[in-house]
Amino acid sequence: MKFTINRSAFIKELNNVQRAISSKTTIPILTGLKLDVNTDAITLTGSDADISIETTIPASDDNNTLVVEDAGSIVLPARFFSEIVKKLPEDTMTVNVVDGFQTQITSGAASFTINGLDPENYPHLPEIDTTNTITLAGDVLKELIGQTVIAVSNQESRPILTGVHFILANGEFLAVATDSHRLSQRRIKLPEANNADYDVIIPGKSLTELSRMIGDNNPDVQMRLSENQVLFVLGNTSFYSRLLEGNYPDTSRLIPKESNTTVEISAPALSAAIERASLLSHESRNNVVRFSVNPTDKTITIFGNSPDVGEVTEQLQPTDLAGDELEISFNPDYMKEALRSFGQAMIKISFTMALRPFTLVPTEEGENFIQLITPVRTF
Amino acid sequence: MKFTINRSAFIKELNNVQRAISSKTTIPILTGLKLDVNTDAITLTGSDADISIETTIPASDDNNTLVVEDAGSIVLPARFFSEIVKKLPEDTMTVNVVDGFQTQITSGAASFTINGLDPENYPHLPEIDTTNTITLAGDVLKELIGQTVIAVSNQESRPILTGVHFILANGEFLAVATDSHRLSQRRIKLPEANNADYDVIIPGKSLTELSRMIGDNNPDVQMRLSENQVLFVLGNTSFYSRLLEGNYPDTSRLIPKESNTTVEISAPALSAAIERASLLSHESRNNVVRFSVNPTDKTITIFGNSPDVGEVTEQLQPTDLAGDELEISFNPDYMKEALRSFGQAMIKISFTMALRPFTLVPTEEGENFIQLITPVRTF
Repeated sequence: MKFTINRSAFIKELNNVQRAISSKTTIPILTGLKLDVNTDAITLTGSDADISIETTIPASDDNNTLVVEDAGSIVLPARFFSEIVKKLPEDTMTVNVVDGFQTQITSGAASFTINGLDPENYPHLPEIDTTNTITLAGDVLKELIGQTVIAVSNQESRPILTGVHFILANGEFLAVATDSHRLSQRRIKLPEANNADYDVIIPGKSLTELSRMIGDNNPDVQMRLSENQVLFVLGNTSFYSRLLEGNYPDTSRLIPKESNTTVEISAPALSAAIERASLLSHESRNNVVRFSVNPTDKTITIFGNSPDVGEVTEQLQPTDLAGDELEISFNPDYMKEALRSFGQAMIKISFTMALRPFTLVPTEEGENFIQLITPVRTF
Repeated sequence: MKFTINRSAFIKELNNVQRAISSKTTIPILTGLKLDVNTDAITLTGSDADISIETTIPASDDNNTLVVEDAGSIVLPARFFSEIVKKLPEDTMTVNVVDGFQTQITSGAASFTINGLDPENYPHLPEIDTTNTITLAGDVLKELIGQTVIAVSNQESRPILTGVHFILANGEFLAVATDSHRLSQRRIKLPEANNADYDVIIPGKSLTELSRMIGDNNPDVQMRLSENQVLFVLGNTSFYSRLLEGNYPDTSRLIPKESNTTVEISAPALSAAIERASLLSHESRNNVVRFSVNPTDKTITIFGNSPDVGEVTEQLQPTDLAGDELEISFNPDYMKEALRSFGQAMIKISFTMALRPFTLVPTEEGENFIQLITPVRTF
């Protein structure tokens, strides 16, 4: 196996594949990066058993200045190989398996020889049916992930809640996540007619990594499913994730249909005030902020305190306020994350009563995106 | 005590003073920031007992929009107060001691009330004689610190070596640091005639913090001494550091006068090669890189290896090479730090023999700046 390549083109793809490689794995060969070289392209593969990323660098793209001398495969220690590649002196580098799995990396006057591993021992990537492909715009998928993954649970006590529930039915795509304290739900109408029916749970961690790989100028992403794996294809890169097994709880009945108090306000203005109140609530044993709605003078008041440090109070004038007087307490961190998912939008908050979950939706297009937060009992 | 001020002007000075404030102090009041307010200025003070920083914000500068309503003093929890100030909604803020040491901070609709501490309990800053002031250009002092502080010891076993030795005599300023494995020495001719004689040891940690405070556009720095303290004055800011007590070892006899092999090479080119070799030496038990000088073909060869991972070899052509053949081994981290202190300059390395310390000096102006490294025995 021997090839010469443009170093920055190689580093770009290496960085992508490294997202899947963990140094903490219990399977030693997975600390490695797999290189497969054939006459017209090289393929880089990384995996932590949950996520696998495979990317191809074709010789046909002149920017890669890829010249393959000998085909073949090798597994190289990923972290170490990456450090070497990033510190080489010249614009191009040559990788050459010289003796057994010993691999020489040369660039200018620098010559490294490092110990590789047998590529035959590297696990095979799952095979995934190419029928039933859904195509999503990269920015839409990225937004959807950002909006739902915040409500995923970090606790392994209920593993199913560490994933996002994806449902495809009737040409509509629904994504829901909940950690049982809050819930995020996003609905997308698919642009093209699609008869596929899916009901899968994708680990939140996989979605976060996938989202980081969707660049700002990234075009469409293809999504394909097998029984226990999902594959996302982005250009020359394939991103595989295992699926979570089990039944996701029925979340549709959690969302209240009615409300007694509604507040319309700008998401970033409310977020800044909650951020300030959380400075004090974070110093207190129970991290709670009080939110009071006063229909008489059309104001809301946000209050946070810590017996040791002090207190903060802030009064805001919402754009609109209707219904009953209300005093409710909640975890400000849930509120901040929910508000951030609305960007710069105006939102509508709907309350039923002090101990019932309340919802936040964008004032425009409210039926397609909803954040729900369960309040905290403070007495 | 009550004043209103432009928030960004305040934050800028707050950030400076916070360099001296540690949350790990054993003296509770030193986790606080002291505010002293009088009719024409406010003064901020922070200290960790080793370093104290005091800065004044005058009302006379219109950019501060400082309006003092009531004079007075207070000590506020520094980390917490700083977080609040940075998150306030408006351009200005008002700080008001309302009841005992309770302090109100208001900006727009946000109102914080936090518990302060009695300013009477805050330690007094040392009084320093204003005679015997040395004036140094900010960039010269910053460069001098950067060049010497790298050789300071991190180990408390010989506390005296954790400082930089400053000697002022005959209108010349000499700074030396050594951790007994390497040594850095910088000499500066003072621009103006100065009859003062100093011989003090300033903690390396203090100098690093001082150096960070010297901005790129900073004019002169005044340096003043008392028996056990040094004061640096930068504009409206005073930086105090305690001095280390004891006798610094005589370092002048450590620097070899003769050499048998000399190499002239560009500092950044050698640094990059050493960096690559250290990738492998870092993986090995003894972190050592081998450096061979071959006078016949006028090359040097750098070699690093790790039994587990592999090896690296790199041949360089120095600008000039004279004297005997030589093979020497050293800690590449010491070499990298020494080389970085020369910036983009050409340097001359002078060796006597394989187990004797060698020196690095800039090819130009070599008598004023010297780095010395002790090699490692590898057999």
